[in-house]
This record gives sequence, C-alpha cells and structure tokens, in this order.
Amino acid sequence: MTTKNLRVAVVGAGMMGADHIARFSSKINGADVVAVVEPDQARAAAAVAGLPGASTRSRIEDALEHDNLDAVLIATPGPYHEAVLLPALEAGVDILCEKPLTPDSESSLRILEAEQKLDRPHIQLGFMRRFDAEYIALRELIVSGDAGGLMMLHCAHRNPSTGEGYVNSMLITDSVVHEIDTIPWLVGEPIAAVEVKKPRRNALAPAWLEDPQLILFETASGVLADVEINVNVQFGYQVTTEAVFEKGIAEIGKTAGLKRWQDNSWGGDEHVSFKTRFAGAYDAQVQRWVDAARVGTIDGPSAWDGYLAASVSEAAVEAQTTGKRVEVQYAVTKPAFYN
Amino acid sequence: MTTKNLRVAVVGAGMMGADHIARFSSKINGADVVAVVEPDQARAAAAVAGLPGASTRSRIEDALEHDNLDAVLIATPGPYHEAVLLPALEAGVDILCEKPLTPDSESSLRILEAEQKLDRPHIQLGFMRRFDAEYIALRELIVSGDAGGLMMLHCAHRNPSTGEGYVNSMLITDSVVHEIDTIPWLVGEPIAAVEVKKPRRNALAPAWLEDPQLILFETASGVLADVEINVNVQFGYQVTTEAVFEKGIAEIGKTAGLKRWQDNSWGGDEHVSFKTRFAGAYDAQVQRWVDAARVGTIDGPSAWDGYLAASVSEAAVEAQTTGKRVEVQYAVTKPAFYN
Amino acid sequence: MTTKNLRVAVVGAGMMGADHIARFSSKINGADVVAVVEPDQARAAAAVAGLPGASTRSRIEDALEHDNLDAVLIATPGPYHEAVLLPALEAGVDILCEKPLTPDSESSLRILEAEQKLDRPHIQLGFMRRFDAEYIALRELIVSGDAGGLMMLHCAHRNPSTGEGYVNSMLITDSVVHEIDTIPWLVGEPIAAVEVKKPRRNALAPAWLEDPQLILFETASGVLADVEINVNVQFGYQVTTEAVFEKGIAEIGKTAGLKRWQDNSWGGDEHVSFKTRFAGAYDAQVQRWVDAARVGTIDGPSAWDGYLAASVSEAAVEAQTTGKRVEVQYAVTKPAFYN
Amino acid sequence: MTTKNLRVAVVGAGMMGADHIARFSSKINGADVVAVVEPDQARAAAAVAGLPGASTRSRIEDALEHDNLDAVLIATPGPYHEAVLLPALEAGVDILCEKPLTPDSESSLRILEAEQKLDRPHIQLGFMRRFDAEYIALRELIVSGDAGGLMMLHCAHRNPSTGEGYVNSMLITDSVVHEIDTIPWLVGEPIAAVEVKKPRRNALAPAWLEDPQLILFETASGVLADVEINVNVQFGYQVTTEAVFEKGIAEIGKTAGLKRWQDNSWGGDEHVSFKTRFAGAYDAQVQRWVDAARVGTIDGPSAWDGYLAASVSEAAVEAQTTGKRVEVQYAVTKPAFYN
Repeated sequence: MTTKNLRVAVVGAGMMGADHIARFSSKINGADVVAVVEPDQARAAAAVAGLPGASTRSRIEDALEHDNLDAVLIATPGPYHEAVLLPALEAGVDILCEKPLTPDSESSLRILEAEQKLDRPHIQLGFMRRFDAEYIALRELIVSGDAGGLMMLHCAHRNPSTGEGYVNSMLITDSVVHEIDTIPWLVGEPIAAVEVKKPRRNALAPAWLEDPQLILFETASGVLADVEINVNVQFGYQVTTEAVFEKGIAEIGKTAGLKRWQDNSWGGDEHVSFKTRFAGAYDAQVQRWVDAARVGTIDGPSAWDGYLAASVSEAAVEAQTTGKRVEVQYAVTKPAFYN
Repeated sequence: MTTKNLRVAVVGAGMMGADHIARFSSKINGADVVAVVEPDQARAAAAVAGLPGASTRSRIEDALEHDNLDAVLIATPGPYHEAVLLPALEAGVDILCEKPLTPDSESSLRILEAEQKLDRPHIQLGFMRRFDAEYIALRELIVSGDAGGLMMLHCAHRNPSTGEGYVNSMLITDSVVHEIDTIPWLVGEPIAAVEVKKPRRNALAPAWLEDPQLILFETASGVLADVEINVNVQFGYQVTTEAVFEKGIAEIGKTAGLKRWQDNSWGGDEHVSFKTRFAGAYDAQVQRWVDAARVGTIDGPSAWDGYLAASVSEAAVEAQTTGKRVEVQYAVTKPAFYN
Repeated sequence: MTTKNLRVAVVGAGMMGADHIARFSSKINGADVVAVVEPDQARAAAAVAGLPGASTRSRIEDALEHDNLDAVLIATPGPYHEAVLLPALEAGVDILCEKPLTPDSESSLRILEAEQKLDRPHIQLGFMRRFDAEYIALRELIVSGDAGGLMMLHCAHRNPSTGEGYVNSMLITDSVVHEIDTIPWLVGEPIAAVEVKKPRRNALAPAWLEDPQLILFETASGVLADVEINVNVQFGYQVTTEAVFEKGIAEIGKTAGLKRWQDNSWGGDEHVSFKTRFAGAYDAQVQRWVDAARVGTIDGPSAWDGYLAASVSEAAVEAQTTGKRVEVQYAVTKPAFYN
Repeated sequence: MTTKNLRVAVVGAGMMGADHIARFSSKINGADVVAVVEPDQARAAAAVAGLPGASTRSRIEDALEHDNLDAVLIATPGPYHEAVLLPALEAGVDILCEKPLTPDSESSLRILEAEQKLDRPHIQLGFMRRFDAEYIALRELIVSGDAGGLMMLHCAHRNPSTGEGYVNSMLITDSVVHEIDTIPWLVGEPIAAVEVKKPRRNALAPAWLEDPQLILFETASGVLADVEINVNVQFGYQVTTEAVFEKGIAEIGKTAGLKRWQDNSWGGDEHVSFKTRFAGAYDAQVQRWVDAARVGTIDGPSAWDGYLAASVSEAAVEAQTTGKRVEVQYAVTKPAFYN
C-alpha cells in the first residue's frame, strides 16, 4: 500500500463530472483531482476553480502524457467512452468508468480485448447501486438462502421527468441498464431473455416517448424479473425492488426518515433525484475504487459486467421494437482474466 | 340462550345516542331499539324515524314501565347517569352506560351499592378501547410476558379541536379518562398516584384552556405512564400507546391503510374523529354487550371500573390544579361481587 | 322497508358455509338462518346446532318449498352453483352466491338468461374485496383522478400453502379470479387480453403445481395489470395492489397494527388466512346484501360480473396452457337489465 | 484555504479513538493522523500500525512539541479532557473534543476562560447528533414554523445493555447528555429546569442501576421534553424523538431499510450500536470539522455548548438524587466570543 494520494484525471465536466470533482474535494480520502479533461474551455476552467494546481486538458492523451496520472474517472456520455478507455488502458492507469462501458456489445468486446493485454482488470464500472446499503442487504439475504430460493423480482424505476434528448431506446440503455446490472448481481447468474410490454402511456410524458413500459427479464435458471420503467411520473425519484422467495418476501427502496402528521394526513418526503437517493452509494463507490486502485486492484463491477449489460441492452431494445421475446446472445464466454 | 331479540331503550338522542341507534339498526345482531328516552321532543322524534313501532319517552321510568325492556343503553352526559342508572338497576334490566359511570367517586359508590342488591353485575361501562383490536393485541403481549415485564407506557391522546364548553378539568374527566381505564386494564393493577405538567400552551386552543398537558400516572408496582393530552392539535384524531418492556418496545395507534406517493412526498390519511378510529371498537362493544345480556352477564368493564376511574379522575384534577403529585384514595376495596 | 328479518337458507355447510352461518348468528342485523342445505347429514346437523328452529335439508328444492325463504346464500363449490341458482331464481328469492358464479362462461350465460326472466337482478356475487376498506379507498382515488390517469397495476396474491386438490388451473379459477373481478372494477373497463409467465417454481409447492406464476392482464384502454399468484409462499396470507398513476403511486395491502421492537429487529404480525385479512369485507358484504335484499335490490357485483369473470378465466387458463397472449371473447354485450 | 492536509493527533486510542483513526484513514478528506497520544504503549502501537510515519506519544505536550500539529481530536474519557484541552489551547491548535467538554461546570468554565485568550473559538464539541440527517430535518421543520410552534418533545434513548463501570449518574452524564445538547439546539433556547421520575426498574439491568428513568426538561419558554433513558432494554440501539407542534406531530429515529415478510411476521433489523445508527453523523462531523479547521473556524457545537451541557447535567444529577424539580443555574452569560 502506498501512502501517496492517487493522482486522478476526471474526464468530462458536465453534471456527473462536476459532481465527482466535488466529491473528491470534500469527501474522498486518498486521491486528488490533478487534471480535468474537457473540450469546452469555460466548463473546464470552472471545474478546476477550487483545485489549485490542477491542469485542464482537452484530450485525455495530453493528461496521460503530462499529468503523471495514476487513475482516470470517465464521466462523459457513453459514446465517448471508447476513445478515452483505449489510451487510458494503454497507459496502464486505473479507471472508474461511468455506465455504460460503451453503447454496444461490439465496442465493449474491443475494450475487453484491450484490457486483457494488461496484467489484471483496470476498469471498474460505475454501477453504483451495488454500493447502496439496501441493495447490499438484499443481496446478502439472497445469498444466505434464509428465505429459501429466489423466484421473482419486481422492480420499479421512477423519475419525475425526462428532457429533450431522452428517447424510447434510452428507457433501456440509460435507465433500465441499472437493473440490467443489478438483476444478475442479485440473482447470481446472467440474463437469458427479455420481453417488453407497453401499458397505457403517460399523457404527461413527451409526445415521442412510450412511457411507462414493463420489461420482463428471465435469468438462466428461470428467475423472472419485471421492471416498471416510468420516467415522467412527476412525484419523485424512486427505485424499489421486491424480491419473492420460496418462503417470504423482501422489499427495498421505500425510504422513510422524518415522518409528519399534519393536515389530516401523515407521511414523509420522497427523493426527487438520484443524487440524494444514491448519495451514499456514489460516495462508497468512489472511495472503494480509490482504496482498491492504491493497492492495485478493482473493487466493483468490471468491464466484463459492462459487456454483459451491453449485450442485454441490445436484446432489450430489440424486444422493445419488435414486441417479441428476445433471447440474449453472448458472443464470448467469461475470460478467466475476469474471475 | 334466548333466541328472542333484546328489547333495548336508548337514553339520550344526542350525537352518541344517535350513533348507537344507527348501530342497532344497521349492524347489531340480536337486539332492537324499542324506545328512545329523550326530553327534547323533536330530537326524540327524529331518532325513532327509522324505527317502526319504537316509542319515545321523556323519562326512563316511563320506558321501564311500558316498553317491556330487557336492556338500557345510556348515552346522556355523565351528570345525568345516576338518575337513569338507579331506576334501571331497580328494574333489573341490563345496562350499557357510556363513560363516565358518574362524575365523581361518591356518586359512583352509590351506584355500586344499588347494583350489589342484584344477583350479579348488570352495568357494563362504555370504555370502548378495550374492544379495539390493537389495544387487545397490546394487552395480550403484556400478559404473555414475551417481551419481559412492563416498565413504562407513553400515551398520546390528540384531537383536532374542542368546543365552547370544554374546560380544563375535562382534559382529565372527558378525555384522559379513557387512559385512566386502559392503563390499569393493560398493566393489571390500579393507578396509585398522579401528577400533571403543563408545557408551553397551544396558541390555537381556546383562550381559557391550558392545552396540551402531560399527565404522569404511577401504578401500584411502579409502572410509569405518561399521557400527552392535546386536544387542539389540528391535524387529526390520534390515540397512540408505546409500551416499554424489559426486552423491547411495542407501539399501537399509528394507523396505515392506503399509502400514496405524490408531489415529492409519501403517506396516508389520518383519522379526524373517534368515530372512524374506534368504529370497530364501538361495534364490537355493543355486540358483545348484547350477546352477554342475552345470556345474563356482562362482557366488559364493570361499574367497579367506573368507580376506580372516578377516583383517579378526582385525584388527577387535584393534581392539575395544585401542580403536585397526588396519591389516589380508594374509599372501598373491591367487593367479591365484581370478581 | 320491512322490519321483518330476512329468512335465509345457507347452501353448503363446509368451511365457507359454516363461517357464514356463524356470521349470521353473531354479527348480521336483519336476517336469520332458517335452513341449512347440505347432503352430508352429520355436517348439516352440526351446522344448525346453534340455530334453534332451523331445518336441515339435503336439496335446495325442499328448502324453497318448506322454509318460507326470502333469500339463499350459496357456499358450495362452484360446479354445484348452477343446480342451486336455477331453482332459487325460479322461486324468486334473493341470492348471495360465493364466487365463481359458475365454472365456465357457457353455464354463466344460462344463469344470466334465467335471471333476466325476473323483474330485476336477484343474484349478488361474493367478490368480497369490493367491500374491503383499502380497495374502496384505492378505487376512490382512481375515480377522483387526483393522481392523474391510471396506467398500471402491480398485484400480488400470496397464500401460505395449498391442499391436495389444488391444481394449476385453480391458480386462475380459484385465486386470480378475485383480481379478475377487482381489476375491471378498479379500472372501470373490461379485461381485453391475458398472458401467463412461469418463473422458477417453488420447490416447497406440491410437485404437480407450477407455482408461482405472473399473469399479465390488459384492459380495453391499455392499462396493464401484472398479478403475481403465489400460493405456497409459506410466510402468510397477503394480497397487495400497487397502482401506478400519471403523477404518483398508491399501495394497499401492507397491513400494520401493533408493531414490536425486540431481538434486534422490528415489525408486526402478518395475516395467515383470508378469514382475518378480509374479515371486515365479508361482514360488510353480507350485511349490505341483507340490507339490499330487504328493500328488493342487490348491492354488489352482479351475475353479469360473474359472467365476465368466467370469460376472462377461460382465456387465462388458455394462456396458462399455451404460453401465448390470448384475447378475451365476450359472447354477449351487457344487457340493460344489469345497468 | 490551504491545500495542505491537516496534521492531526488523536488523543486516546480506546474504542472511540480507534474508530476515529480508522475514519481518518478510510473516509476523511484533507487530514492525516500524524500522532497518537496514548499512555498504554501496546494500544498506541496497535493504533498507528496502519499509519506509516505516525508517531506515538504518551503525553499531549510531546506531540504538540514534536509533531507539528494543526489539530487534535480528543477521545479520552471526560475526566482526562481538561489536561489535554489546556495545553492544546495554549498551542493554538484546532480541537475536536468528544463529549463531555469536562465532567463538571466549574472545570468547563476554566476551559472557556483559556479559550477566550485566543482570537476565535478553537474547540468543537463531539455532539454528533447535530450532524444526523433526521435531526437536521427535524430542526429545519421547527425553525420553519410550518407545523406551528413547538410545545413538547418526547425522546427515547435506548441501549441493549451497560457494562461494569456504568452507574446511575452516568444515565445523565454519559447518555442523556446527548439530549441535553440536542434539546436546546432543537428548541432554540436553554434548558431551565429538570426533574427525574423512576419507574419500575428493569430486572435485567445490573443490580446497582435504577434503569430506566424518565427525565423531564423544561426550556425557558416552557417547552417540555421528556426523555426515556433506558440502557438495558436488550432489543437494540434506538434513539427517537417525537416533536409535538401546535398543528401536528413529527417523528424521527424509527429506522427502516430492507423489510422482510416471513414466518407470519414482517419487519426489519434494528440497530445494535451507535456506531451504525450514527455512522453518517460521525463521518459528517469529522469531515466538517476538518474542512472548518483548514479555513480557521469551527463548524459545530462549541465549548460554550459544552459548558451549558455540564450545567444542566449537574442539575439533572441533583434532580435524580433528590427526586425534586431543580432549576438550572448558569454561572455566566454567553460571552460575545461565542456568537
């Protein structure tokens, strides 16, 4: 273990990137942001304002060459990931890459190939729900077998509203992709097939969006997971899972906190954004990545998990378009490198 | 057991009386209201409108003489109870008497004396909380000993608001009197002492009322029960008890039902009146009284419980006035007649 | 309105029949059980033990002829309903018929035809959930539009275990049939199509049963309802519905009551049977049927609702067998008689 | 702002000290533990095992002289605080001092005097509840006035069990001292009087302990706070507050998380220690102290709050011993230095 702080470049200074930069400054132990890679100069300048000595770069290659980096956190949109991942892997730095790994399974396979030239996995993928206390408790219950075997999962993923650029396929690739990672992680086996149902649409959603939808996933042994994806439901940000076991039921995601009784009713506040709902998970994810990188390993989902998610997402988008049940095709089996 | 329906006179056709008359017509098995005793002629006429064949009387004595009564339900204000109870006892009919038995312990003793001339207790007292499913569950837990010995009770008794005639002493005699009955019933022993604390008052309460107050009761073996009486708290009608055991805690009265998530919050509706909160308890109380009367017994709190409550209420009002701890004096010990 | 009590025959003295007989004796106002129709002599004798003067009959025809009946409550298994319904309709008595009306849509149509020879609907069907306080609150919320339009329903129907005679099709015809009635009642329109998914089965279920299953219903306007039917889940009896609106979410069926904190955990008791979970609904259903019958009407689901349920059940069993989406066929449109 | 990490000495390497050392290593940004002050050599050595370069000292004076300290975190028992605080203040370093400031008000006054020789407050006191999300939410609700004025607080402070050295007065000085700080912080004014009630004792508590007790605090304007202190209640670690407003009620501390339905019951896990219940509060407290110290200020309760708590604790212990209501005496008024 080194006592030296990790020298980190954050790539992308949009909402997620800025959020991570603030996290490094205020909460994360053992790492400093020494460079921000962002083509938009004004945004880059704003991002380093509170970071004395940090450089701004418009290309990852410049940061890798000049900033003596130990690690890179990638917070750009998915289509730009590959162009950062490949040089970063070649430079041998540690990487925390926001989801998705890349937008499709073919490009994800290229990343796997490049990474396997190194001595060990260097990419940790930003599926932060694996660091949420309630998801962890649910997984422990599943693994323990205390409630019998798992048979079904009922998931809901609810957002107040979506913006201009958010289109039908993003229900899968941008939102349900979290469940696409957590379902195999919870169940302990890959997703085998997917089907999409479209209920009566929400008149408050943008006109081009078929929102909500119900996505049905089947795992290899037959665990059935239904996911309500519902991203213009106004009332708040809510992510829940109900797990159905042979001997009982478990539920996570119905948050509590301060409760009030007033005006003939009772209750509490609901989250309005993933930033508060998963704040603890984001913090834990980054801290554990930093701790792992300092001892030369990763501690979270790998690029392989990113490839699996890309393959399932492709099948799910096909199911969404065709209305049919689609079996997921995996082009390669899991390399020993990722065990 | 007789298959004949019980012939009941309801005495008092105010809010509580009307409520009970409706209960007999729509829910109670085995009893018919055959007379309404009410000096206000218009109110009496309205009360019997849906009861073909029922008579209206201005005096209980007339009903006892002419209506071939089996039983009497007394729903007048407490100060009028004695004048109904004594002739009804003399006539030997069964009696369900709304709380309090009488307004003071001295008059309550007179009732005890009159009742003991009969072969068995004929008076059942309307402390309906003993018929509420949650109170019953709490008592069963206490009796079972599963959570260890009981040490404390934290009670709250909250009303939206009070009317013109509601004065300080009624916080005790009209409202806390329910806890004055349930505490000994739950704990299994009488109340031995009482003290009253007055917090910062509610500016929304009537000017003459010191509301809320905290009443501290001690039972014979030292169980301490604090009761928040808070009758202008606006938000709803809520009656809760938290029981503190040697090995754990139990709570009743936080009602649930349909829950909603909307407008960045979650929760449900709160009761606004005892009529909905304790609807099931009122129904069960009257049905069990009818069933008991038909086989010649009572099935609920007795006149003796009413005497105990009157004695504790007197001590509590003294504690409220003096600010001092007052030990409860019981003038007589429990007659075998009431075992 | 008549003040005379309704003379009722209970047909079938098994578990449900005995339960209803006890209900009439202890809770229901305005009706007396004057006959029990039950071919098993011992069972019939036991059923009338607490009913002085009540007769026992082995055939409904005998009761109709000799017992001066006003009404009949049918609590036999579904296949025996038609043989009771037809003579009872012919006799013109009022009928409360436990679900299902009959086991298939063809026989249900025969009942509709027979009933329409009378002046008004005489059959009320025992879908008692319509009388449950939480279901009623949910329906009021849907009707109010306060949470926006309804888009999805997530239902779960869980039983501890099933007996010898319970086979795959009964998951639909015996259990989900309740949701088959409540979904159209909640949504305000009929079910149009159905599909069945089979997850990993519960190893604790009987070997011949594919349990649990996920049933997907679509209503005419596209509301999607998924129903988890799960009848060997050991932990208790639980019936829940989560309704997804354009602006929020509502949930019913997670019961509360007394809560305990002990042994490093907190919580409460779960129901183990429909008898406690829906006790209030059964009582309300029978009382309202009695009240309605006394004034010559019905007050609850009609034979027409029974026919709709039979049609949907048939489609659902086909979907369960074929694995395909099946559109529901209704042979007739709703007669004005049932409006 | 300096970008240099704060050089911190942790004084005391017992349970709390070790916990804080681990916190600096794994979670806290901007500070390094460079010295551990602990007379027990073995314990000191163990504490610095994971801190390359950190020194061990048996006296705070040595660390102040040799370790180039910016700050000191004091985690020794209360009676040893003064001997560390005085030289640390003289050295002008920043201080995070675990509660209590000192064991009595007289010694606390000496600390106030010594601190006021400096340019600004240097001591932050470890009342970590002020950093708990639910307490913060409750305080915001009180300050907002949205529920009307605050009238009462019902607090409960429950521990599974206590050890050998835990005696009656520590119910106040060690446990209720947290409420002694949070009550004025929530209400916005000091505690004016205190009284102690002793219910039936817990037979599972050590023989020498009168446990539980009910402590009644009155603030200057008459807000009444009752605190159940109950430290051998077996079932878990639970700290709750119910606030009673003019228009409603609010409650914190009933934790939720993953819920299970199994074996005829439902519920979740309860905390067993303050370490998990207040983990987030401890982290936030230390991080905010570090952030404040780096810019030359404090960000939390001050030594003045420690003096107030010491004064109230003294009065409460007197009330506990005498059974009487005791008015709190404050020897000095708040110096402008602490505004």
